[in-house]
Amino acid sequence: MKTIIAVVLTIGAIALLMAQRKSEAAVSGPEFTKDDKLLLPANYREWVFLSAGLGMNYGPVAEANRDRPPLFDNVFVNPDAYRSFMKTGTWPEKTMFVLEVRASASKGSINNGGHYQGDVVGVEAEVKDTARLGGWGFFAIGSGTSGKQIPKTARCYTCHSEKGAVDNTFVQFYPTLLAVAKEKGTLTPAYVAAER
Amino acid sequence: MKTIIAVVLTIGAIALLMAQRKSEAAVSGPEFTKDDKLLLPANYREWVFLSAGLGMNYGPVAEANRDRPPLFDNVFVNPDAYRSFMKTGTWPEKTMFVLEVRASASKGSINNGGHYQGDVVGVEAEVKDTARLGGWGFFAIGSGTSGKQIPKTARCYTCHSEKGAVDNTFVQFYPTLLAVAKEKGTLTPAYVAAER
Repeated sequence: MKTIIAVVLTIGAIALLMAQRKSEAAVSGPEFTKDDKLLLPANYREWVFLSAGLGMNYGPVAEANRDRPPLFDNVFVNPDAYRSFMKTGTWPEKTMFVLEVRASASKGSINNGGHYQGDVVGVEAEVKDTARLGGWGFFAIGSGTSGKQIPKTARCYTCHSEKGAVDNTFVQFYPTLLAVAKEKGTLTPAYVAAER
Repeated sequence: MKTIIAVVLTIGAIALLMAQRKSEAAVSGPEFTKDDKLLLPANYREWVFLSAGLGMNYGPVAEANRDRPPLFDNVFVNPDAYRSFMKTGTWPEKTMFVLEVRASASKGSINNGGHYQGDVVGVEAEVKDTARLGGWGFFAIGSGTSGKQIPKTARCYTCHSEKGAVDNTFVQFYPTLLAVAKEKGTLTPAYVAAER
């Protein structure tokens, strides 16, 4: 009898700890609706930040806002993929990037002349899922909570493929990752040749 | 005998899971050396990103680099403090901000004219630890892995106290937090009055 109680307690305690770990992780990679839209995870702002730019002028959100003050972009990646990249210099299956485009402001509070971030203007995403997408796919989420895949004829596919420093991604703009890719020797030959 | 084995296995399994959780969390808040220097956690880039600015022109690192192209600043906060703020609009004890200042670059790869981030120029931190610091403390880490507290006579203390939108912190520059502070009613009276 004592044995049974002890075993039940063991299973209960382990289940509790595992459930807690799962809930802490929340959404940790790409998830799709039944009609193949990519969901924007509610907690993507808790994913790993890669870098920010100002006025980088690429992608459909930037193009649609050419007449506005320069836009910021923040790039986040799911933590599992980040940890994998830090070890290997490559992206695993189920890697998901979120590109958050924000307005910039210059006058406010104590700031004089610098640029700080305002409201979200739009969100785009890039996902590696070979089984589902045949490789990488780009998704236009805009200001919604999910978005359709951008057709494979779009410019983003060729540009990322030809110019991304590592496997269709612009690691050249993410300084902490660029150092890892150099060390692991995972930069594309095209990128290495262009930088010479 | 069976009971003893089952209990030992229980304890072992729980210890293993707890150790794993601790290692995943890694450093999750402020830690100090014996001579009161604040340690820069090796994993602070996995903390929660709050926002980035360009050319914001405040703090000692920015002041020491006035003749250079504008600097980016990335702000990270420890995940426990972030989750607490999202629920309450206030900062708990052991809140730690990391301000990472980076060079900006404009010409490189496919970028034309926008600004993207380069190497780290310096790091500063702000910690809330009433028992140790009597409230908030600022730390100059520079390019090291730890840093001394900035004397309480420095300008950062009065500026954060007088102008920070929530409890000595510049929540007005962190758009996702500003919305929470508005909802929870935790903006300082001075900030609310100045924005009117």
